[in-house]
Amino acid sequence: MSQLRCDPITGRWIIADITSPKRPGEFELMPQKKKGGACPFCAGSEKMTPPEISAIRKPGTKPDTPGWSVRTVPNKFPALDTQGSVENRAIGIYDMSSGIGAHEVIIETPAHDKDLADLTPKEIENVISEYRARSLVLEKDDRFRYLLIFKNHGAAAGASLEHSHTQIVALPIVPKRVKEELKGAVTYFGYRERCVFCDMVAQELQDKLRVIFENRHFVAFCPFVPRFAFETWIVPKKHNQDFKSIDDKTVKSMAAILKDTLARIKKVLKDPAYNFIIHTAPIRDGINEEFHWHLEIMPKLTSVAGFEWGSGFYINPTSPEFAAKCLRQGKGE
Amino acid sequence: MSQLRCDPITGRWIIADITSPKRPGEFELMPQKKKGGACPFCAGSEKMTPPEISAIRKPGTKPDTPGWSVRTVPNKFPALDTQGSVENRAIGIYDMSSGIGAHEVIIETPAHDKDLADLTPKEIENVISEYRARSLVLEKDDRFRYLLIFKNHGAAAGASLEHSHTQIVALPIVPKRVKEELKGAVTYFGYRERCVFCDMVAQELQDKLRVIFENRHFVAFCPFVPRFAFETWIVPKKHNQDFKSIDDKTVKSMAAILKDTLARIKKVLKDPAYNFIIHTAPIRDGINEEFHWHLEIMPKLTSVAGFEWGSGFYINPTSPEFAAKCLRQGKGE
Repeated sequence: MSQLRCDPITGRWIIADITSPKRPGEFELMPQKKKGGACPFCAGSEKMTPPEISAIRKPGTKPDTPGWSVRTVPNKFPALDTQGSVENRAIGIYDMSSGIGAHEVIIETPAHDKDLADLTPKEIENVISEYRARSLVLEKDDRFRYLLIFKNHGAAAGASLEHSHTQIVALPIVPKRVKEELKGAVTYFGYRERCVFCDMVAQELQDKLRVIFENRHFVAFCPFVPRFAFETWIVPKKHNQDFKSIDDKTVKSMAAILKDTLARIKKVLKDPAYNFIIHTAPIRDGINEEFHWHLEIMPKLTSVAGFEWGSGFYINPTSPEFAAKCLRQGKGE
Repeated sequence: MSQLRCDPITGRWIIADITSPKRPGEFELMPQKKKGGACPFCAGSEKMTPPEISAIRKPGTKPDTPGWSVRTVPNKFPALDTQGSVENRAIGIYDMSSGIGAHEVIIETPAHDKDLADLTPKEIENVISEYRARSLVLEKDDRFRYLLIFKNHGAAAGASLEHSHTQIVALPIVPKRVKEELKGAVTYFGYRERCVFCDMVAQELQDKLRVIFENRHFVAFCPFVPRFAFETWIVPKKHNQDFKSIDDKTVKSMAAILKDTLARIKKVLKDPAYNFIIHTAPIRDGINEEFHWHLEIMPKLTSVAGFEWGSGFYINPTSPEFAAKCLRQGKGE
């Protein structure tokens, strides 16, 4: 069973396993590719996962059998429990909450040897449609306040299974990073009466120094203040705070730019580990019209060390101008 | 040359290398122990480092020769330049500053095969005295506003050289994490008229559930809201915002508890990679009497993945109550 705990100094939350803690000796920092044994995410291994929640599959095929192209299942080792109500309490100066939430896995392809960058634009479109579909269902649960969609690719980025997948976590509170971004966007809007992300897109498209690629709906660029070498953002050109409200044309356009960007990163950096995260507005927290949803890709090329942990400052050995140049020149395909 | 850049959304700062960016193919995520070749931090290799800034050494021995027990040198690959003045400017919506600061390395022992946990209490006392001595010198430079003292132990924690050392970085701005902690402490003080860290120490000593060890001046405990499994804090019992103002008795007491704690971590977790960071008040930023300096140790047993990067939420597979129990039982020596 897990418990949510809030730090009384910084307001940071954690999820701690209080009933079956991991013991010394059970940690494996860089879990390796599973030797032997079937992969639970492959076509034909459907019985190895918890029963599927939803899937995009061929007409006439049954749940938990082959025939799917994208498949969503509950995480077998969820960080949060779906059952129960959100209960807040305190012990002395410490606040905590029951570890309620949803933790789902979106398997992006039945093929074990393909990652997201290898899929066709149409297949990636299906993956993004599934992100949107699950978001639209999960937002109806009034215990949840935030939906976090993220992908870990490669052991160094925290992926414990190699088969390409994305995770979606529904949280009963709005996380700190999201609050910070919202607050920043609101503050900027307050004194300029413009969206900071819209201004950023305009400046990047004018400067061109950090732009990698653009299409009708999106621009991919290395942000001016990247925490990580070759960090890349994909930002919609049209202001919209809410990822799950995008229409089919936008999904198609997003699939195209995501494929292009991931293929460039894969080629130029030789298939690095990376995380990507969809930053979107909270689901039950007012209007948030100052926010602007986007996707951030963070290749894991360097270690995060004491300096970063102590300061929240990041040392980046590669300027975003140089990173963008490399990624512009190195087309994926 | 490096440049400081500030994120217009969150206020996060980074240091980017803008003149000699690291290229694709030059990254090595987990640098391995150097095969062959002399270690620049060993006794006898003094000429391999930039000239020493200060050292604790036998009377009669000369700088940059053997005879030292603790030795401070400039970082050969500094994140910031010591020369120049702090200049702030903007390009469009982006703010930046010249990359001015100091970046020093405190070599903790002349012996290559010893780490901090292996040193005698007296040797650790010398190391802590050197942290204090360098802080007292660096604070006089009025370009600097924060001194960050941190240690990376092991490749997974970002250490690029194996020989035991600590780093000290003098920054021209107060970093985000420090501001957050200060703000939290001020807010707490504002409505309770007490220090949040003093309250935490009192509650931990009363509960005893998360305490590992205490001595006259300090208590070591696993915090109620740990980001990482087996995260451990060493907090002085007496309220004081400023690490560098501690007296010799406190240095001695700190050496004793630091040795005890690191030895327990080394034994119980089988010499894991870890970072530690001294959290102290800014040097040129008002009084900050609500703050309470302390040291945070973060073993690196798990990867930080997309969930953490996206939310600022941490999933900790081990409760601090269980971690403290393991560390209490497993004495280092």
